[in-house]
Amino acid sequence: MWHQTEVTRQLDIRYPIIQAPMAGSTTPELVAAVSNQGGLGSIGAGYYTPEKLREDIRSTRALTDKPFAVNLFVPEYNEVTNTEIHRMKEVLAPYHENLGITQDEPELKHDDDFDHLVDVIAESGVKICSFTFGIPETSTIRKLKAAGVTLIGCATTVEEAVMNADECMDMVVMQGYEAGGHRGSFLNDALTSTVGTMALVPQAANAVDIPVIAAGGIMDGRGVYASLILGASAAQLGTAFLTTKESAAPRIHKDAILAGEESGTVLTRAFSGKYARGIRNDFMADMEAFQDEILPYPFQNQTTKKMRSEAAKAGRSDLLHLWSGQGLRLAREGEAAEIFREIVREVETIYGTGQ
Amino acid sequence: MWHQTEVTRQLDIRYPIIQAPMAGSTTPELVAAVSNQGGLGSIGAGYYTPEKLREDIRSTRALTDKPFAVNLFVPEYNEVTNTEIHRMKEVLAPYHENLGITQDEPELKHDDDFDHLVDVIAESGVKICSFTFGIPETSTIRKLKAAGVTLIGCATTVEEAVMNADECMDMVVMQGYEAGGHRGSFLNDALTSTVGTMALVPQAANAVDIPVIAAGGIMDGRGVYASLILGASAAQLGTAFLTTKESAAPRIHKDAILAGEESGTVLTRAFSGKYARGIRNDFMADMEAFQDEILPYPFQNQTTKKMRSEAAKAGRSDLLHLWSGQGLRLAREGEAAEIFREIVREVETIYGTGQ
Repeated sequence: MWHQTEVTRQLDIRYPIIQAPMAGSTTPELVAAVSNQGGLGSIGAGYYTPEKLREDIRSTRALTDKPFAVNLFVPEYNEVTNTEIHRMKEVLAPYHENLGITQDEPELKHDDDFDHLVDVIAESGVKICSFTFGIPETSTIRKLKAAGVTLIGCATTVEEAVMNADECMDMVVMQGYEAGGHRGSFLNDALTSTVGTMALVPQAANAVDIPVIAAGGIMDGRGVYASLILGASAAQLGTAFLTTKESAAPRIHKDAILAGEESGTVLTRAFSGKYARGIRNDFMADMEAFQDEILPYPFQNQTTKKMRSEAAKAGRSDLLHLWSGQGLRLAREGEAAEIFREIVREVETIYGTGQ
Repeated sequence: MWHQTEVTRQLDIRYPIIQAPMAGSTTPELVAAVSNQGGLGSIGAGYYTPEKLREDIRSTRALTDKPFAVNLFVPEYNEVTNTEIHRMKEVLAPYHENLGITQDEPELKHDDDFDHLVDVIAESGVKICSFTFGIPETSTIRKLKAAGVTLIGCATTVEEAVMNADECMDMVVMQGYEAGGHRGSFLNDALTSTVGTMALVPQAANAVDIPVIAAGGIMDGRGVYASLILGASAAQLGTAFLTTKESAAPRIHKDAILAGEESGTVLTRAFSGKYARGIRNDFMADMEAFQDEILPYPFQNQTTKKMRSEAAKAGRSDLLHLWSGQGLRLAREGEAAEIFREIVREVETIYGTGQ
């Protein structure tokens, strides 16, 4: 039943199953495991330095000779004042105290590494690059295409999908409302781009000529197969791989997903300054009273970074970003390769029943 | 490819396609058209008097000898004070003035007709009854089951699905976040029960032994087929039938859907007091400033009724409840029977391509 789709053909992979690039949680082991099984692993390089990206590409290549992708965050240039930073530091002070740690002066900086990360990809021979938070400038697109890189955009509305196609992205991930982690919205406000995968994918597939990749709430063979039926040429799964052995998510993050319920997640700006879906915890609840104080991305992310890192070490899930999609009850533990094979078998079983 | 599913077998229908009961917009012609094509039409009797229900059952039977369903709203007993009513009347005064109509004293009453509507169904020989806004009392369930009626519940979370199964519903509609019109949430707050269809259906199918019906964002053969793949035994479509010739939705409502975009809908309590998804218009936007004044269901519904009815006559879509799901771009005009047949053909075409 595994016909080639536009995505498997263009990316030279066997199965139309993509491991979502989860910045902060992917490892060379996870990426390589998915690619070795015939899917597409993705390095979540959104927060990487060029050195870290070079290292991860090298480590991944040591584990697989199959194609894999690198995902970058398209930078945006927000402004922040010292007063605003000071106010957020005051808001965060009790949490640092509670953790028994000092609050350092955060290193606040724009995403200046983007161009260097693009250069690393172009020079590395990596053949697939995906983007979140927008579409890069034409010069970047040209540079990567000249290096033979296939480009994958991300959209949460049909309008954003059309812009991805117009700007020469080769394919586009349609991120439904169910998706965990950051919303990829860039034209529309994240709180108004709330279209579920079931409605989003067929509308986007009708509107653009480039292949569409379904994302959001897909956790097993049923979701992968349904995505193809809806008009997608592949399915992208994040949460399904976040609980694997190879994922770098802290144990308490994995446990929260494995014990979670489908309606336990909400969108929050509390951790990074951009809306992302995670399991609602005390910090997210507390921050609802400080919506006006939350710094724009990436400054909020940098300001909460130490707190989250220490919370992970201390096993404090009340202060950690527990990113997750809405399919929590379908999450499973194990090695990524085994879970990947289970998903493939599930698709084959449904197909075999002649549905 | 049209295997029997648990739903088609139990309901004695040919295709696992259900026309959602859209209170206020269904007509005997619409219900009969869907049932005659081999699907399941549903009379949206939520706001009906017993007399009106008897009349609609009679009219529907004159048009079809196939099974159809009646949908009821499970009543809830909210309280409202004269002061609150007066305050909402003041809020609504400018809109009545703008329409050039007087604001009558609304007839505010509880859903007292529920038991009588149940009696009409039990006596009528109608064989399928679906519920929205909760699960009826055991005595009601017993009465309908004794009359040989198959009962269909509605749920927006796994927890609500499990309760439907525990309370002896024969099957349950899983209403995803994409769905138009009223949210069926009853255990969980409607604003926290926001799980998309792609994530909701497989989690519910795993959790309950009764057949699951997918709803929310399903507009064509792709959505119907994907629903079956996700583990549903049928798909329920509302918006897809709201724009048909037989639908009682005002012309301006149909036009708004046909011209709409996927991210143009939001949840609002402005019209009925209960959260429902509709195309955002001026009245909904205005009412965002009066969240505390909005009366509980059904009183808000009764208080805005005349305004909406006059707005429909005057072609004023800014004051009308423009219920719609998130699949607007896939809406089509035409006769219900023709659209139904197109959906069936779409499923057969996908199946034929060997997906």
